[in-house]
Amino acid sequence: MAMSFSAFSTIDWNGKYFFARPAVNGQRIENRIAELAKFGKDAQGRGYRVAYTPGDIEGRSWFISLMKNAGLEVSIDFAGNIIGKRKGKNASLKPIAFGSHIDMVPDGGNYDGTLGSIGALEVIEVLNENKLTTNHSLEVIIFANEEGGTIGSMALAGNLTADGLKQVSQSGLTQAEGIKALGGDPTRITECIRKKGDIHAFVELHIEQGGILEKENLQIGVVEGIVGIVHWEVTVEGFANHAGTTPMNMRKDALLVASQFVIAVNEVINSVQGNQVGTIGKIAVQPGAYNVIPGKVILGLEIRDLSAEKIEMLFSEIEKRAATIANETQTKISFVRQANASKPALTDKTLQQKIDASAKNLGLTTKFMQSGAGHDSQEMAFIAPVAMIFVPSVGGISHSPKEFTKTADMTNGANVLLQTILSIDRG
Amino acid sequence: MAMSFSAFSTIDWNGKYFFARPAVNGQRIENRIAELAKFGKDAQGRGYRVAYTPGDIEGRSWFISLMKNAGLEVSIDFAGNIIGKRKGKNASLKPIAFGSHIDMVPDGGNYDGTLGSIGALEVIEVLNENKLTTNHSLEVIIFANEEGGTIGSMALAGNLTADGLKQVSQSGLTQAEGIKALGGDPTRITECIRKKGDIHAFVELHIEQGGILEKENLQIGVVEGIVGIVHWEVTVEGFANHAGTTPMNMRKDALLVASQFVIAVNEVINSVQGNQVGTIGKIAVQPGAYNVIPGKVILGLEIRDLSAEKIEMLFSEIEKRAATIANETQTKISFVRQANASKPALTDKTLQQKIDASAKNLGLTTKFMQSGAGHDSQEMAFIAPVAMIFVPSVGGISHSPKEFTKTADMTNGANVLLQTILSIDRG
Repeated sequence: MAMSFSAFSTIDWNGKYFFARPAVNGQRIENRIAELAKFGKDAQGRGYRVAYTPGDIEGRSWFISLMKNAGLEVSIDFAGNIIGKRKGKNASLKPIAFGSHIDMVPDGGNYDGTLGSIGALEVIEVLNENKLTTNHSLEVIIFANEEGGTIGSMALAGNLTADGLKQVSQSGLTQAEGIKALGGDPTRITECIRKKGDIHAFVELHIEQGGILEKENLQIGVVEGIVGIVHWEVTVEGFANHAGTTPMNMRKDALLVASQFVIAVNEVINSVQGNQVGTIGKIAVQPGAYNVIPGKVILGLEIRDLSAEKIEMLFSEIEKRAATIANETQTKISFVRQANASKPALTDKTLQQKIDASAKNLGLTTKFMQSGAGHDSQEMAFIAPVAMIFVPSVGGISHSPKEFTKTADMTNGANVLLQTILSIDRG
Repeated sequence: MAMSFSAFSTIDWNGKYFFARPAVNGQRIENRIAELAKFGKDAQGRGYRVAYTPGDIEGRSWFISLMKNAGLEVSIDFAGNIIGKRKGKNASLKPIAFGSHIDMVPDGGNYDGTLGSIGALEVIEVLNENKLTTNHSLEVIIFANEEGGTIGSMALAGNLTADGLKQVSQSGLTQAEGIKALGGDPTRITECIRKKGDIHAFVELHIEQGGILEKENLQIGVVEGIVGIVHWEVTVEGFANHAGTTPMNMRKDALLVASQFVIAVNEVINSVQGNQVGTIGKIAVQPGAYNVIPGKVILGLEIRDLSAEKIEMLFSEIEKRAATIANETQTKISFVRQANASKPALTDKTLQQKIDASAKNLGLTTKFMQSGAGHDSQEMAFIAPVAMIFVPSVGGISHSPKEFTKTADMTNGANVLLQTILSIDRG
């Protein structure tokens, strides 16, 4: 058989010709991760590429120049998202989009978001190097302010409200001011909305941010969905009194009752099978002195699951346990559901299969799993079929300078992204 | 029998002459409590006669004028304590001292300290009205800044250090600046120290600040001692992680562990007989967000008891429980003992008996009990035999605008104070 398949044919270990797959350059990914990490440091030298800050803006400029060097037609939409377009063969087909974000939380790590961004660019580089043109046009999207509430993708999906724009971000700027600093135009924000069907598919490569893949020694996570999140402010009301003069049997200690509640929440979450998580991450006590029995405790309760019904079921159990505790201790426990709930977002089953098949074709092990963290894909799911590819993060650590993903895993993830895009493009 | 006993003889219900006891004027006490309550209000009209503030200084001026009207020889010592002297018959005898304080905590009540101060002045008024001169000279002492750490009595007992003077008080002034504002002289603070034996006895009338007398329907508390207080800062170290991506079985949630610890402390304190109290009144969690598993929790533990040994025994049990919890949860729990511990102060047994006898002679019911709160008497115990008389406070509420003691109870307390002083004076 002649070399009729151009640069894409090679000889396998059995001596047979076959289509060689185009493959990403892991070293280039690693180098670019390291280069991007230099942008955005605070006075102590910690990672501070927080959305809308000078470090974020400098990092974006660097990224845009790489995109342009890779031949992408780059623009910034009214929400401050960076869009890099590569024309396909068939102008009547809707674009395939992929990407992530390059902003970070304060004192954050170098992989969350950046792997998906640099991985998306790497796909373009490989297509260029292999002189491949897809049928669909391609769009690399680097979303604005993911860590501050998936602001860019929310705008794109039409979910960013006028109130949302007034919100003050971590940078100190309002979202509107921040978007302007990125080159967007908050006054025209609705003009960047993509309608349902405008995008053929959206795929995001991301570090897992949990320890599951690492623990189970697996290489690729096929994300079935992104969990919904509900927050409640929980108030425990006892009676503040003098800690010296009030006998133990005459107390209504709100912190003692809150402690029973914290344990009860943990028991309820663990009482059923599944991947649900429940956390009390906030606590404040009033008045809060060594010598005063706590009169009031305010807690922050969060429940996440892929099923909104399960979240409600768990919360209902927690309410029952709280009522029992309050009754036994003659205190009051009340709940206020917070307005920022996010609904579970399921990924597209066909795209899941394409990721799984692409990974297996590359000889990689896979696991279907949920995303416990929120992502831009969650917003994109409002307007397009979405999929997410996870790769292991060491120790499951994220939002921390200790965040780390091995080059081999990043390379695997980017190769799966590439093959998945090609698979989607083939249809 | 002629009226040879002057104003002090009267006829009892059996028609027999006997010595009538001089008695306090309850209405005058109530009126003065109300008058003093007008001094020191914050912008919201709440009680704010905090030591060293203008309200405190105005209240003191008003009190000094009453003392002078009552014929006392008034001075302010170098620590800012108000001293009102009344000469006795025998100049070789050491003075009997009694009094309390008129400063309050922010948003405090009208009885804590003020009853003992106005009650002490009432004793002088009654002696004047009955033209009685005691053998010992008498001293009414109104201590400076009791609520901010028994500063005035501490100075008098020689326990106020140079570092203590630099401490910033609730008023915003350092103790030194505050003392100066009261007319004291912090540079000469050691000159106001009273040596052991300088004062024959010190007696303090005070509201109970607990609900025990009210609950048991008793009129007078004979205080056996003032509890010792030890504070520990307790740190629970788990591991902060993403609340969405970290499965329940991979967490080291410091707040969950801290909750177990709070319950364990309560169990240990309740595990032995006695009046000991243990409180966790402070809690702070790091990082403290809905979506982050708590990595570190810092708690404030306080234990009070009349026995220093019992406090140590209870703490040792708490340490054991903490070690077990930390071991089971693979976390770390550590303790830092705070420097501000106060030792238990026992009152004088002879004086206790005099209070008990005086109360019973007046037909009042009594209970021997501990003081769970700190008082100036605690400092005075370093240099003189001390005693405290408690009267019921409604609901056991103190350090609150809801603090209330009935006029009948105040009257009982002041009569017991009067009779106790006379009993001590008789020897």
